[in-house]
Amino acid sequence: MTPSRLIRPLVRELHAYVPGEQPKIKGLVKLNTNENPYPPSPKVLAAVKGACDQRLRLYPNPTADALRAKLARLHGCAVENLIVGNGSDELLALATRAFVEPAEARCAQCGPPRAGQPCVWDAKTTARFVEQGLSARTVQYFNPSYSLYPVLADITGAVRNAVPLAAGFTLPGLADLRRGGQWDFRAALSFITTPNAPSGRGYCTAELEALCRAQKGVVVLDEAYVDFARENALALALSHPHVLVARTFSKAYSLCFQRVGYFIGHPALIGALHKIRDSYNVNGLGQVAAVATLDDLPYYRRNFRKVIATRERLGGELTALGFEVFPSQTNFVMAKPPRFPAQAWLEKWRARKILVRWWPHPEVKDFVRISIGTDAEIDALVRAAKRILAGR
Amino acid sequence: MTPSRLIRPLVRELHAYVPGEQPKIKGLVKLNTNENPYPPSPKVLAAVKGACDQRLRLYPNPTADALRAKLARLHGCAVENLIVGNGSDELLALATRAFVEPAEARCAQCGPPRAGQPCVWDAKTTARFVEQGLSARTVQYFNPSYSLYPVLADITGAVRNAVPLAAGFTLPGLADLRRGGQWDFRAALSFITTPNAPSGRGYCTAELEALCRAQKGVVVLDEAYVDFARENALALALSHPHVLVARTFSKAYSLCFQRVGYFIGHPALIGALHKIRDSYNVNGLGQVAAVATLDDLPYYRRNFRKVIATRERLGGELTALGFEVFPSQTNFVMAKPPRFPAQAWLEKWRARKILVRWWPHPEVKDFVRISIGTDAEIDALVRAAKRILAGR
Repeated sequence: MTPSRLIRPLVRELHAYVPGEQPKIKGLVKLNTNENPYPPSPKVLAAVKGACDQRLRLYPNPTADALRAKLARLHGCAVENLIVGNGSDELLALATRAFVEPAEARCAQCGPPRAGQPCVWDAKTTARFVEQGLSARTVQYFNPSYSLYPVLADITGAVRNAVPLAAGFTLPGLADLRRGGQWDFRAALSFITTPNAPSGRGYCTAELEALCRAQKGVVVLDEAYVDFARENALALALSHPHVLVARTFSKAYSLCFQRVGYFIGHPALIGALHKIRDSYNVNGLGQVAAVATLDDLPYYRRNFRKVIATRERLGGELTALGFEVFPSQTNFVMAKPPRFPAQAWLEKWRARKILVRWWPHPEVKDFVRISIGTDAEIDALVRAAKRILAGR
Repeated sequence: MTPSRLIRPLVRELHAYVPGEQPKIKGLVKLNTNENPYPPSPKVLAAVKGACDQRLRLYPNPTADALRAKLARLHGCAVENLIVGNGSDELLALATRAFVEPAEARCAQCGPPRAGQPCVWDAKTTARFVEQGLSARTVQYFNPSYSLYPVLADITGAVRNAVPLAAGFTLPGLADLRRGGQWDFRAALSFITTPNAPSGRGYCTAELEALCRAQKGVVVLDEAYVDFARENALALALSHPHVLVARTFSKAYSLCFQRVGYFIGHPALIGALHKIRDSYNVNGLGQVAAVATLDDLPYYRRNFRKVIATRERLGGELTALGFEVFPSQTNFVMAKPPRFPAQAWLEKWRARKILVRWWPHPEVKDFVRISIGTDAEIDALVRAAKRILAGR
C-alpha cells in the first residue's frame, strides 16, 4: 500500500498551508505580518527570565488558572467564561471542530460539498444526524477577512460560505444580507474579524449586535486587533449565549513568539472547547508572560497610543502622495497606491528592503497592506515611496 | 435556543477531561506524573533566558526548522521525515484526524458505533467513502497503555478497539492476536506505547517489527519513555512507510513546561500532519530550549543513568519489602504492594506527603505506579513503606 492511501481522502486533497514570509535579509524593514514594533514590557521579560529554572521539568497548569483568574477580573466575568489557547488560532480551529459537523471529503455522486448545493447523501445525513434549524455543516465568514477561516473549514470538511463585505469593506446591513440571499442566518459557525483584516475597517458594536441577534448558530467575533480600535464588542460575548469573542496576546501585547490567545463566552460553549483541546495546550512560559503582561497594562496602552499616532501620520503622508488610504482601527493600513499597480509597489518597496503585504485575490489585489512599525520604519517607507514616485 | 444545542452532539456527549493532580501542598514528594526529577541543563536554561528579548514580539518559526535540522542530523533522516508538535500529545491528536475517518456521533437506528458492530448507515458510508482494505474508522491500542488514546478516539468520533496485553503486560504474539480475533490488522490507526505505560514493560524491536509488518494501517510507536529503555524502534519509522515514531522532550529532557514533541516517519504521512496542524503550533522559547537540549546531550545521558540506577535500587528495596515489582524500562515502576490493597497504599503514602499514582480500572487496580524521583525522594518513599508495614 502506498503511504498516501493511508491518509484520509479529505486531508490528502488539502493544499499544504504556506506560512507567511519570514525573510532572513539583514536590515529589512518588515511591515508584512502585523507584529508589534515594540518589545514586551521589561517586567514581562524579567518575569519570563525569572521562570527559567527547574520548573521547566514540570507540566504547566493545564487550564491556565492564574491567567484565567486575572482575565476574569479584567473583563468582569467568571473563569468559566474563559478558555486559553496555543494562540487564538488554536481556538478558532477548536471552534470549527466543536460547532460544525464534518462533511465527508467527497460524495461519489455529487463531488465535494458546496454551499447551497446539498448533495443527496448530505441531505439524508443532515436530516438524520443534525440539529434541526441549523446549517450544521457550514462555516461562514465575510470576504475579505482572516484567511485562516477557509483553511479551517477545509480541514474540518465543512461547507464554506464566503460572503462579500459591502463597499469600502464595511459590514453589510441586515436588510442587504437578507436581500442578497447568500448570507446564511442558520450557519453553524460564523467568523467575523472585527476590526476587519486586511482592510483595517472598524465595526461598531451596535451593528455587530444586530447581526448577532439575527444569527441562529455560533458567532465568533475575532478581535485580534481590537486594542487599536475605538470600540470592542466584548459585552456581546457575556450577554448572548451564542457569541464568542476571540482575543490574542500576539499583536497588541507583543507576544507572537509564545502563542497565547483566549475566547470569552457562555460556559456551555467554552466547556465544549475545553473538552476537545489538548490537555496541556498552553506552554508554561507563555502563561507566565501573559500573566505578567496583565500586571503592566499601562506600558502596553502607551504603545497602543504610539502605534495609533504613527498610523494616523502614515495615513496623512500616503494620502498626500496620492494613495487612497482606508481608515484603519488596527495596527496596519490598507491603501490603493497611485501610478503603478499594487503588486509593482510591493516589488519596488522590496527592492528598497521594505516588506509589505499584497494578495492576488480580486477583492484586494489593488491594495497593499502596511503594518505599523516604529516611526523610523514608517519614515523609511514614506521616503522610499517618494523616490519611487519620483522615478529614482 | 439553549447554547448546548449549538454544540455538536458528539462533543456534547464527551466526558470532560480531568487533568492529573497538581497538588499545591508544600514539601510533598511528587512521584505521580513521571516528570524528570532533574532540571534542564544549565546551558538550556541560559539559552532560554538569553532569548527573552524583543524577539518575543515576532512569530516563531512556523516549521521549527532549526530544531528539525538538528533532529535530522541526530537521527540520520531528512527534515521531511519530521514534524514538531505542541508536545507529542498534539501530534497524537493530529494522527487521529489525519488517518481515521470520523464516525457520526450517533446513528438514530443503531446507537453509538462500536468495534466489530457496524451499523447500517456506517456500512453504507464506509462502502461509498472509504479506502478499500482498511477499517477506516478504527483507533486501536493495547490495554493498559497511554490513557489519552481512547480520549482522542472519542473526540474524533472514531471506533475504539482496546485489546488486552498479554500476561505481565507483555506484547501478545502475532499468532495469539490472530487467534484472539479482537486485534484488527486493518485498523486505520494503531497506537503502541513502547516501553509500555503504566507498567514500564519494554518491548524489543523485533517483536514490534513483526507486528508492524502484519499491520495494514498506520502504526504509531509512542516512545515517550524510550530514553530509559534498552532498545528503541526508531529505525522502523524510517524503513516502513506506515510506521511513525513519537518522541517527546517532556520526560527524558525535563521540558514538560514548554510542550515540545515530534514524530518521525515517511514524508507522505508527516506531510499530511503538517497540512492540518496550527500554523504556528510550537512556541518560540520551546524551540530554543529543544535546540539547546540537543547541544548538551551528555548532560541528559548522565541523568538517564542516574534515573535508571535509582529505579533498579527502588525495585530491589520494594521487592525486599514484599512488593511484586514489574521490570521497568522507563522512569517509573509498577508494583503490586503487600498486605493492603493498592488503593490503601496510595492513601497511606499520601498521608505521609508522598504522592504516587493508582487507577481503579480492573487491569491495573492491584498496582501502584511510582515515578522515579531523586535518590532522597525514593529514600523517603521506602522509609514510609517500612513504617506502613510496621504499622507505625
